[in-house]
Amino acid sequence: MNVLTTVREMRAAVRRTRRDDKTIGMVPTMGALHEGHLSLIDAARSTCQFVVVSIFVNPTQFGPNEDFQSYPRTPAADQDACRNRGADAVFMPSVQEMYGEGSLSEVCIRQLSETLCGAGRPGHFSGVCTACAKLFHIVQPDKAFFGAKDFQQTAVLRRMVADLNFPLEIVVCPTVREADGLAMSSRNAYLSPAERLRAPALHAALSLAEELILRDRPPAGLVMEAIRACLAERAPDGRIEYIQIVDPERLRDVESTDGRVLVALAVRLGQARLIDNALVDAANRRP
Amino acid sequence: MNVLTTVREMRAAVRRTRRDDKTIGMVPTMGALHEGHLSLIDAARSTCQFVVVSIFVNPTQFGPNEDFQSYPRTPAADQDACRNRGADAVFMPSVQEMYGEGSLSEVCIRQLSETLCGAGRPGHFSGVCTACAKLFHIVQPDKAFFGAKDFQQTAVLRRMVADLNFPLEIVVCPTVREADGLAMSSRNAYLSPAERLRAPALHAALSLAEELILRDRPPAGLVMEAIRACLAERAPDGRIEYIQIVDPERLRDVESTDGRVLVALAVRLGQARLIDNALVDAANRRP
Repeated sequence: MNVLTTVREMRAAVRRTRRDDKTIGMVPTMGALHEGHLSLIDAARSTCQFVVVSIFVNPTQFGPNEDFQSYPRTPAADQDACRNRGADAVFMPSVQEMYGEGSLSEVCIRQLSETLCGAGRPGHFSGVCTACAKLFHIVQPDKAFFGAKDFQQTAVLRRMVADLNFPLEIVVCPTVREADGLAMSSRNAYLSPAERLRAPALHAALSLAEELILRDRPPAGLVMEAIRACLAERAPDGRIEYIQIVDPERLRDVESTDGRVLVALAVRLGQARLIDNALVDAANRRP
Repeated sequence: MNVLTTVREMRAAVRRTRRDDKTIGMVPTMGALHEGHLSLIDAARSTCQFVVVSIFVNPTQFGPNEDFQSYPRTPAADQDACRNRGADAVFMPSVQEMYGEGSLSEVCIRQLSETLCGAGRPGHFSGVCTACAKLFHIVQPDKAFFGAKDFQQTAVLRRMVADLNFPLEIVVCPTVREADGLAMSSRNAYLSPAERLRAPALHAALSLAEELILRDRPPAGLVMEAIRACLAERAPDGRIEYIQIVDPERLRDVESTDGRVLVALAVRLGQARLIDNALVDAANRRP
């Protein structure tokens, strides 16, 4: 497995791979890899012949008061994990290599970027899109793999790829969870042991919401109340940033749960900002 | 020569070309082709093995009161010209094919897009960049060729390509002029016969500016005054939109002409908005 740190090296590896007529699968990450990321490598290996994992903590997607400095960085362990999981190359450029003297260019996806996490993190998705556009141009993958935990990110990037005709496919893979239901996330490292015990409250609340919708298709407001009550009971110190029920394409709030809906939430627990979601289709209700 | 109207057909042609290991040169145009465009096809043929001319009057780079509807469209003559000049393919998608149900995505280049033509045409360069990003992703050229008449456009696109790591090179070719100095432009068709006689005033004023700078390196303000006087004499009915002297990379106004500077202007003459520029390097002064 090659570890590449410059755009020039990465482009040369891409050229060699293309010359061998191999398809390229890419797993863009910010490192601190966990089983969720590694499952994306598996997915990439299953359909692509050359798998590149990028590891880049992208400063432009962090707000001024966010955790760019403290974001967990474990490059040696990440490289080992990628090698063990069968990645062909790791691309880990420096901030200087990616942004040089600074960039004037920005890719923005209106509407989709302004709701859910975007409301509390202005500029976040534009940072994500701009960095991904760069990475896609450098690695030129046929497919790029992302986890469903960051549902809004996948919706925004799918839209970017479709609108701007990027010659690649965004593949969304299921959220990988701890045994108690907590969605795996590099930011779970911020949780104290006591907070870690309460963190599965998000998944529990989403499971409850799913059950309610499949059983009764109640108005979205009632489902949100049930989520709020569940969180209050299981994680009373959690500060809810949002609970929203939206349509999964446009991410606009819906009133009815009688259709395909995304139930999404963000909760702060101590130093950690946790997000999770459930895609629920009332057509799948139990008979 | 193939004429392709869908993204799917164009991508298939690109795949075949790549399989044959040929380099791709692209000439993005809005049609109504003139000798300026055709010189870009020549340049593309001289360094690339497969030349694609795109013809697309891009609605998103026109302001609400601009000439999108009346912009000259001569598709049959354009195809003949491309064939005669040795292009390998013409890509002429419909607006529906390019934008479908509408796009939420936008590529913006700050600073460079806000001065010169950008000041009077808000959103113009974002429209240009977004359309070019799409075209670059569809055609995947190694090089894309643009004329120096639209200097700001080339500066903005070069910056976009560099900032976002597009795997291609922007090549800028010299402005092609009529015998009397008027820069060729599809919009020259808007000039009445009498206006056409006065239109070379722009080039005359720029030539005067160049002469002044090479001889004396006067302050930018004096050069602009000389340009204004020349235009007033030769095209008294011209309405000056801007006269600016800027550094050619950042497009910021300069006070001194003792270096490499871009002298740029936009003048309305009847229904036509004419632009032209001169890149002047005082280091090239006559001995």
